[in-house]
Amino acid sequence: MIRELNKEDFQQFWPDFKRIIAAQNSYAYEPDMSFEQAFELWCTSPLKTLVYEKQNAYEPQNHILGTYYIKANGMGPSSHICNCGYMVAESARGQGIAKQLCLHSQSLAKELGFSAMQFNAVVSTNTAAVTLWQKLGFDIIGTIPNAYQHKTLGFVDSYVMYKKLN
Amino acid sequence: MIRELNKEDFQQFWPDFKRIIAAQNSYAYEPDMSFEQAFELWCTSPLKTLVYEKQNAYEPQNHILGTYYIKANGMGPSSHICNCGYMVAESARGQGIAKQLCLHSQSLAKELGFSAMQFNAVVSTNTAAVTLWQKLGFDIIGTIPNAYQHKTLGFVDSYVMYKKLN
Repeated sequence: MIRELNKEDFQQFWPDFKRIIAAQNSYAYEPDMSFEQAFELWCTSPLKTLVYEKQNAYEPQNHILGTYYIKANGMGPSSHICNCGYMVAESARGQGIAKQLCLHSQSLAKELGFSAMQFNAVVSTNTAAVTLWQKLGFDIIGTIPNAYQHKTLGFVDSYVMYKKLN
Repeated sequence: MIRELNKEDFQQFWPDFKRIIAAQNSYAYEPDMSFEQAFELWCTSPLKTLVYEKQNAYEPQNHILGTYYIKANGMGPSSHICNCGYMVAESARGQGIAKQLCLHSQSLAKELGFSAMQFNAVVSTNTAAVTLWQKLGFDIIGTIPNAYQHKTLGFVDSYVMYKKLN
């Protein structure tokens, strides 16, 4: 159910992606980013991008409910730490999909030779994400003051989160 | 003495740049990066890149002793925080050039509309840099464990440093 993404997958997920960035409460992306910019950022520039696909026995097309990317967070002497980003369609929240994506990404990271994972800017008010990452073993290792202009709350802090991969 | 960079400046500074990344004690860049990769990274992809030039009355060519870049550290809702990187030729250390570059970059950042500056990974053992940034008002807001593979010391921590610009 979690596999590598192709362009058709991203086309299918694009309305969900747009809703997530337009909500301006979790991602530091331009809220009105174009499809091509988003495809470049999420699918082309990372090392790998994967999707969570729900299979429907009675429908011709499967549904893409979530996606994540993985890439090195630094170069050369810091290339052993990876960075990931995760998105789950609003309509598919509360089913544990983000957890599955994050666990999958940790396994993949180890396969790819990374020894730690870092999130550079988790919006502090996105408590669903912060709590989930903490449950999955990530620590808050830094707080960036007023790092994110939240759509309804104004400027809020972001967290740097980190997990050593064994 | 501090002005925008052109390609000839970077060609002149390139031997110093190569020495700095090959030393593998401060920058998370591939130690054997090519000129074109470095030019893209340091001069093309940032918002602006500047040089510190020493003028010599009796020589036809001035000397490029240092350089810095400035760019947004995030997109969209986080685009109000900038990121800078600084390099000073090894032969020109101890003259206060890094300080001048950093003060210049803070003024430029404000002119460009940024309200804070963040360094994402200052190598903790690079005490000259850490101490200087602290003197110039930056705080350590996070510590990334074993984030940098130092050439002689092995894995060492990196700091996230931050300053609000008034």
